[in-house]
Amino acid sequence: MAFSFRPVDATFYDLFAASAQHLVVGAGLLAEMLAEGADRDAVAQRMREAEHQADETTHEIVRRVNSTFVTPFDREDIYALASGLDDVMDFMDEAVDEILLYEVAEIPAELSTQVEVIQQCAEITAAAMPKLRSMKDLTEYWIEVNRLENAGDKTFRRILAKLFSGEFKALEVLKLKDIVESLEHAIDAFEKVANTVEQIAVKES
Amino acid sequence: MAFSFRPVDATFYDLFAASAQHLVVGAGLLAEMLAEGADRDAVAQRMREAEHQADETTHEIVRRVNSTFVTPFDREDIYALASGLDDVMDFMDEAVDEILLYEVAEIPAELSTQVEVIQQCAEITAAAMPKLRSMKDLTEYWIEVNRLENAGDKTFRRILAKLFSGEFKALEVLKLKDIVESLEHAIDAFEKVANTVEQIAVKES
Amino acid sequence: MAFSFRPVDATFYDLFAASAQHLVVGAGLLAEMLAEGADRDAVAQRMREAEHQADETTHEIVRRVNSTFVTPFDREDIYALASGLDDVMDFMDEAVDEILLYEVAEIPAELSTQVEVIQQCAEITAAAMPKLRSMKDLTEYWIEVNRLENAGDKTFRRILAKLFSGEFKALEVLKLKDIVESLEHAIDAFEKVANTVEQIAVKES
Repeated sequence: MAFSFRPVDATFYDLFAASAQHLVVGAGLLAEMLAEGADRDAVAQRMREAEHQADETTHEIVRRVNSTFVTPFDREDIYALASGLDDVMDFMDEAVDEILLYEVAEIPAELSTQVEVIQQCAEITAAAMPKLRSMKDLTEYWIEVNRLENAGDKTFRRILAKLFSGEFKALEVLKLKDIVESLEHAIDAFEKVANTVEQIAVKES
Repeated sequence: MAFSFRPVDATFYDLFAASAQHLVVGAGLLAEMLAEGADRDAVAQRMREAEHQADETTHEIVRRVNSTFVTPFDREDIYALASGLDDVMDFMDEAVDEILLYEVAEIPAELSTQVEVIQQCAEITAAAMPKLRSMKDLTEYWIEVNRLENAGDKTFRRILAKLFSGEFKALEVLKLKDIVESLEHAIDAFEKVANTVEQIAVKES
Repeated sequence: MAFSFRPVDATFYDLFAASAQHLVVGAGLLAEMLAEGADRDAVAQRMREAEHQADETTHEIVRRVNSTFVTPFDREDIYALASGLDDVMDFMDEAVDEILLYEVAEIPAELSTQVEVIQQCAEITAAAMPKLRSMKDLTEYWIEVNRLENAGDKTFRRILAKLFSGEFKALEVLKLKDIVESLEHAIDAFEKVANTVEQIAVKES
């Protein structure tokens, strides 16, 4: 019979699951933002709301960790995981904001490839959070995120090479480079979340 | 009657206060650097001296933490706070250096808005450091830094949109973008310091 | 008679030495990549192999830390050191990749100065790793890395000023700036490794 020796505040798991779920929403909005004929103002507005809700969840985790005596894992790891998930949302929000503000004329198709990587990362991260309870079957998750991050890295450099090829005007290159870097940072932030989960699992095992 | 159960080396608090005070000086020099008709060479020289003094304080904290048996809070948190304050100074110094070296022709007024945010961050950080002793009344400090960082973030993206609007030549955009990013990094570094203080306060409470 | 009170898995020291040795190889390849008349495709291919081998060493350290009961120092510090060394390799690999992909016409001589700094950092890091066993004579190492990082920082800003001087076309500036930043990140990553070693030494002393 398996049981836990520590009475823990179960809602931490629910909050992390909610936090990752916001990322699935954000990644979807990012994809909408890139779609041809998108109402960029409207999508950016919904993104701001999603980001605000994600913030609320992060604050709820921090409040709870400060007022709870027994936490399911180390306080520092809870902070690291909560702020790691929050960072992803911030980078997705940044990308949406940049697309809106910079009034980019034409967005190269390669950017959609990166957003698909982000959507996949969001989905497997959301699927992994409930497994924190048992700390089981998480290995596949962080291996897959690392694989996606490597693929994203290759696409990232290929996009930059294309931007620098002479096909685009210098100002357009600057705008697109900023957006592509925000996407890259979002993917890196997913990897950091996965690394945090790995370290928590190692400690608790 | 309130008293401390732990005999601690009180000078850590003084050193953190001194470290944050260097940031007030640095932020002032940054503002001078942007002023019209500034003697940029002279201001940059004073900035280098301020940065050097800040370095000395950081090293003094590290030396002391290595030679002291009982520290007021965790050694790792002392390192994190000391290096966090040091990072702010480095980014302010970087901005000053860039303004000098890149020989920027015209600095858009929006940059002064960012430097004002930096000056406010420096002042409330300096005011917060002495409160580490009692760990009281710090909440307002980190809420305010977070608010300032959010405001700074919005200004940052607005400045970039302006730089990319076609009003500036590509090379000027590149120079100004570097400077604006250094200011942004300084503000982010202030937020990181506030987060470290928050975590210390949570642990010690 | 000096002896250790803790039976430890000695191979951690060997693995860190191997990890740093990969950096010496990587720094050498970086220098080859900049040499006039270099077969960039061939050098980049060897860099990918070196990076792959470095990855293997990092994974071996992580596997071992997860399966070993007594580690020579804190698990978290082992992770930090392993991933810090890995980060250096990633930045060197990134620089090589950028030189290949961006098809940079002419590489300014100043970049070789930065690569020499990287080579020196790699050599003294590799020389320092075996000293982790005794934790002796490490002070000189981290002071020297900090000195090199400061020198590299000055060169970095001078190169940027040159890139922004009007001598280069905007697109070439963008390409070269990316490469110079990757070199700068590699040097910063060496400094971070040195800081981690310093913190480990302080804890263990």
